[in-house]
Amino acid sequence: MRFLHTGDWHIGKKLYGYDLLADQKDIIEQILTIAIEQQVDAIVIAGDLYDRSLPSVEACQLLNQSFIKMNLEKKMPLLVISGNHDSDVRLSTGMPWYEQTDFHLYTDLQQSFTPIEMGDTQFFLLPYFEPIAARLYFEEENLTLQEAIKKIITKMYDLFDADKKHVLVTHFFIDGSSRCDSETTVEVGGLNGIPYDLLQDFDYVALGHLHSKNALKKENALYSGSPLKFSLSEKNDQKGVWIVDSQTMQPEFHELQPKRDVRSLEASFEELTNPAFYQQLDRSCFWYFQLTDRSVITNMMAQLRSIYPNILGVERVNGRKKENQISKIKERKKTPYHMLTSFFEEITGDTLTKKQRDWLEEGLQQATDTEKRNQDAT
Amino acid sequence: MRFLHTGDWHIGKKLYGYDLLADQKDIIEQILTIAIEQQVDAIVIAGDLYDRSLPSVEACQLLNQSFIKMNLEKKMPLLVISGNHDSDVRLSTGMPWYEQTDFHLYTDLQQSFTPIEMGDTQFFLLPYFEPIAARLYFEEENLTLQEAIKKIITKMYDLFDADKKHVLVTHFFIDGSSRCDSETTVEVGGLNGIPYDLLQDFDYVALGHLHSKNALKKENALYSGSPLKFSLSEKNDQKGVWIVDSQTMQPEFHELQPKRDVRSLEASFEELTNPAFYQQLDRSCFWYFQLTDRSVITNMMAQLRSIYPNILGVERVNGRKKENQISKIKERKKTPYHMLTSFFEEITGDTLTKKQRDWLEEGLQQATDTEKRNQDAT
Repeated sequence: MRFLHTGDWHIGKKLYGYDLLADQKDIIEQILTIAIEQQVDAIVIAGDLYDRSLPSVEACQLLNQSFIKMNLEKKMPLLVISGNHDSDVRLSTGMPWYEQTDFHLYTDLQQSFTPIEMGDTQFFLLPYFEPIAARLYFEEENLTLQEAIKKIITKMYDLFDADKKHVLVTHFFIDGSSRCDSETTVEVGGLNGIPYDLLQDFDYVALGHLHSKNALKKENALYSGSPLKFSLSEKNDQKGVWIVDSQTMQPEFHELQPKRDVRSLEASFEELTNPAFYQQLDRSCFWYFQLTDRSVITNMMAQLRSIYPNILGVERVNGRKKENQISKIKERKKTPYHMLTSFFEEITGDTLTKKQRDWLEEGLQQATDTEKRNQDAT
Repeated sequence: MRFLHTGDWHIGKKLYGYDLLADQKDIIEQILTIAIEQQVDAIVIAGDLYDRSLPSVEACQLLNQSFIKMNLEKKMPLLVISGNHDSDVRLSTGMPWYEQTDFHLYTDLQQSFTPIEMGDTQFFLLPYFEPIAARLYFEEENLTLQEAIKKIITKMYDLFDADKKHVLVTHFFIDGSSRCDSETTVEVGGLNGIPYDLLQDFDYVALGHLHSKNALKKENALYSGSPLKFSLSEKNDQKGVWIVDSQTMQPEFHELQPKRDVRSLEASFEELTNPAFYQQLDRSCFWYFQLTDRSVITNMMAQLRSIYPNILGVERVNGRKKENQISKIKERKKTPYHMLTSFFEEITGDTLTKKQRDWLEEGLQQATDTEKRNQDAT
């Protein structure tokens, strides 16, 4: 059998305050199109369907409509788990009715011991859970997440049908994975990650939780990554879905094309506001600019926004090396004059001109005089 | 065919801050028990399943579990509409899958033109809607709620199967109905009520919205009332459900017994705290007391709460007639002494004793002296 592996839809998420619902609707349609073209037997969604446990009405509407279209209209079987961003109870609404049309939505740890058979494959769906849920299920105090996962996987192995392939769908941080900015690190995988070794007996592990498809480099365990870029740090990621054939278990990557891509560019304000320059760019993208200018630009953001309606932000690069952090001024006994000149040098990578030095001395002198007069008066 | 008519469950509602979830779980079980005993072919729920458009996780859990038990476990067909307290979009989650097991959940005006046939009866399910929804549906600006309902009912009449009985399930304020305190009057029925005349051609109208079963006195149109008392004003209501047989369309009332009833009692603090007295009472009820005492009682609520854990509140009756409102002091030129004595008389229905009059004069004299000293000092 063949399946499509996706996850981390985060419906309702905003990017720098911009609503992504239209982008998310579009990308879900692309996912369904790929699934149909690739003639898969099921779509696997590895958690974090919503961005919040209490999604907006508009987010609910999009997910409801997407499920109706995929499962009822296009008769596409769905294998879905909840992630750490989903409310297990809220997401589970309607669940037992969904089973009738091969839409399997698991939100509770104990459901994971009911594998779903499709063709030559047994699917084990393990939703995200907090350690407390495992402690209650196994009736063991102080069970860690790692110990819980070990017990769960061991129990799953007992359910293995030797004549079948075995796929695990889950939503945790696997040790050795790399993170990006749009994942909420405080929540990542509970306290710690899951050792990859525990998962080795599965033919394929369809992971959700991390937003880059390259987060874990293992042959049989892959994150699908999010279908859209949810942070600037993902600007160079290629988003997509995995198509897996159970015969080979060799995942094939299929690209998704966002309505509005996340991009960054280093340029001067003059370039950015020059039609000959910006007409070369896809201005509907979410742009982040590294501005090379040093001077003050009046009403800069408003001017840029009128050209780039989805601008994410602007950073001044100003000649100094971008990697540099402003170093702490360690010599506390420096005079104000020295502190100001070295601050200027650090920020701009340049030294003060004669005129600037004169202005500075004059300003400091005035400040000193004023302070002295105030002291004499009291 | 036979059906049970209920509504206004308001799952998640609190009574004076007390959580009612356990009471609501119990009462829903009673409703199901009556439905099974009465061998009905369907349960009709006439809107306001939740108390809020954004119900708590616990409220979601209770409604999800109730639907699973009624429809999947007990195979009970359900005919359900959303009310003004429900979010149509959120409540509609899972809807198209529910149809497969005769669970018909209508949350959108346009669904109301798809009647549901059961036995000898056509059910028309008209969920609560805002006038804007009707304006969009009929593509008519400025349509009032009354005009919209008229158009909707006319359209329904065209769908009438002459060989069937016709039942309307809806959630609005019908003109001439009487209200109680637990209904949010600002939202009742949009701006105005629906004229009863419009509904006369239905054999039965199963209404939701008002919380008393006696809110409307019409032969073929009844509010089910809420299954629990949601305000003190309902303390003398008998809550229950209607059982309707389509042969006669004569609704029979079946009582529900709450886990914790809402009651009030006029008594003295001494009585209320006397074991011989309170052991006669069901102390688990939601009690509201009219206290006959006049004196200050230290730590009164804490003492009463230790005996009556679900106490709603205490009102001082203090001898004056309860119907009396404190009248406005019209003669503004009254002296402070006269204002205070008449205030005391009005509140207590009694006159000041000689000692009380002396205290009052002394206190007023001191206040006047202090004021005078302050004025002299400036």
